[in-house]
Amino acid sequence: MLYEINEKVIRLEKEGKKIIKFNLGDPDQQTPMEIVEAAFEAMKKGKTKYASAAGEKELREVLAEIHGVDVDNIVVTHGSKWAIFAAMYLLFEKGDNVIIPSPHWTAYDLAAKSLGANVKLVKTRFESNWEVEAGNLEALIDDKTKLIILNNPNNPTSKVINEKVVEKIVDVANERGVKILSDEVYADISFVKAKSLLEYNGEHIIVKSFSKTFAMTGWRIGYIIADKTLTDKIIRLNQITLTNVPVFIQEAALKALELRHEIIQTIRENYQKRANLACKMLSNTKLKFTKPDAPFYLFPKLNGLGSEKFCFDLLDKGVAVTPGTSFGDYREHFRISLTAPDDEIEPGLKIIAEAFK
Amino acid sequence: MLYEINEKVIRLEKEGKKIIKFNLGDPDQQTPMEIVEAAFEAMKKGKTKYASAAGEKELREVLAEIHGVDVDNIVVTHGSKWAIFAAMYLLFEKGDNVIIPSPHWTAYDLAAKSLGANVKLVKTRFESNWEVEAGNLEALIDDKTKLIILNNPNNPTSKVINEKVVEKIVDVANERGVKILSDEVYADISFVKAKSLLEYNGEHIIVKSFSKTFAMTGWRIGYIIADKTLTDKIIRLNQITLTNVPVFIQEAALKALELRHEIIQTIRENYQKRANLACKMLSNTKLKFTKPDAPFYLFPKLNGLGSEKFCFDLLDKGVAVTPGTSFGDYREHFRISLTAPDDEIEPGLKIIAEAFK
Repeated sequence: MLYEINEKVIRLEKEGKKIIKFNLGDPDQQTPMEIVEAAFEAMKKGKTKYASAAGEKELREVLAEIHGVDVDNIVVTHGSKWAIFAAMYLLFEKGDNVIIPSPHWTAYDLAAKSLGANVKLVKTRFESNWEVEAGNLEALIDDKTKLIILNNPNNPTSKVINEKVVEKIVDVANERGVKILSDEVYADISFVKAKSLLEYNGEHIIVKSFSKTFAMTGWRIGYIIADKTLTDKIIRLNQITLTNVPVFIQEAALKALELRHEIIQTIRENYQKRANLACKMLSNTKLKFTKPDAPFYLFPKLNGLGSEKFCFDLLDKGVAVTPGTSFGDYREHFRISLTAPDDEIEPGLKIIAEAFK
Repeated sequence: MLYEINEKVIRLEKEGKKIIKFNLGDPDQQTPMEIVEAAFEAMKKGKTKYASAAGEKELREVLAEIHGVDVDNIVVTHGSKWAIFAAMYLLFEKGDNVIIPSPHWTAYDLAAKSLGANVKLVKTRFESNWEVEAGNLEALIDDKTKLIILNNPNNPTSKVINEKVVEKIVDVANERGVKILSDEVYADISFVKAKSLLEYNGEHIIVKSFSKTFAMTGWRIGYIIADKTLTDKIIRLNQITLTNVPVFIQEAALKALELRHEIIQTIRENYQKRANLACKMLSNTKLKFTKPDAPFYLFPKLNGLGSEKFCFDLLDKGVAVTPGTSFGDYREHFRISLTAPDDEIEPGLKIIAEAFK
């Protein structure tokens, strides 16, 4: 549904309609010009050739240093999405299963199913502050379980998972010999610290991206941190599918890392302001929601809401949001992504607030 | 072996060794500056966001017009390699098979095997001018055959398949209900006309790339032309794996198409000169080879050669070529890719000629 809404938005815009886009996790900010310039400089230097399927050595070295791992544990990927798909492709055999706390990002589900794996969801609820019950998760593990996916902070709830809960899940996973894939693409710009899975015990998989942190969504660059057995396999998979992330894009990413402290501070402050405004504007409505720990999302609930119909109706009023059903069994919820330009945030929220007066 | 040689070349170069690289199909020419500038302009305009998984409408329209197909038949892909992998991923079930005339590009084989498909090779020979025997191919078709891959012009032989032979293969495929995937990435710069599979009967799959034609290998952009059923599936696969080719790269590709006539003429003339020089320099050696119909390769033979040992020995003399075994059962062959800079072509060929005096 997420993709259908987006393709419809693209169509409406091509027809000249003005849409306030709260439907995508795509920051409205431009990629910082220093990053764009770095890409251009690299292109001019001829960094437009085939390159290593592992990623450029220099970028991997900087990433390894940031995360305190070995260069061999890092592979640069065409976005975190490819990292996740590649890991699943290599870990799953037909009939295996993956356990995912829900609500959850659509792509996990679709990728797993596309690969012939079964998806077991651990439902979390607004009423329990979206807490993941490690016991419920453990009960789903069987001998076909190859992966647990944690998305921390979570899309669409913007919740950071409590560290004690992560610890419990890690203990369970280690005991049962199941790998965890921790998707941490929102962690660097989180309002509340989201401790990386790297800081827990066990050999797990971490997925990161330049998309959200540096407003580089359309550049398609991320990376995976994993044991060498898995990274070697990903490199070989890259060789037969994608070859390499363009080197000029990797040079842009290097520049982003160089400037990361200031860029992150700016983006985090901006989204904190937006989140505060949204909480304030929606607090006088019938909607219920938890305060976001991280950019970009709110995932409000109205008892009895039919979210798909609501979202298509709202699109006709010029605001795009995503139905809760795109994230699991959440038809009473919808997701607001505060990623429209600054001057559209308030008008967009106002239209939503009106609908729930 | 192709990838092992290349990763070794990258290592040797990082150590400061000078290597004449005849091992990769990566033109030494820079991407034309107009194309680089177009990418930069697009980045500056903010074309750095998530975009359609099908490719940009404008680019698809131009491609559709060039090929005389509908926009819905085109999907822009992260290189032709991804197009091939995606098609295989969607067409194959475990135990299916694909028929490929050999010598053949390594990636077909590795991708098919990675997907659990069996590869049936139709051997062609230098002694028969690399002709594909349609009868031999037909004999391999069974009810598990999902695809025939033609690479026209061929890597590594640089032969254009005789039109009558293509016609025979198409007839067989149509009769038996098997799709052909025609990899035509060298066709636009071919010395001899290589008629596209689009001009034959039946609903088949064509794969094209900007890599070779416009010296854009590292940009990772290509496209697939297929029936709407398949392109729709590829779009959905892109949504869960890669999202989109960066829009600024698609804008660069649009600029490339705008300038295609002059760029193609220049690159073709340059490679024709190189091919002529190579034929001349190697004609006085013990090597046997067919005259290339297209860039970039020669695939010479020496009776009794052990090509892997030869290639590693030659690498120590500072010239990288690829063993014939990377392309199938061709241990008496090796591949020369005439993609080193102009001033390295003659010295590199001289070292090879010396080895076969």
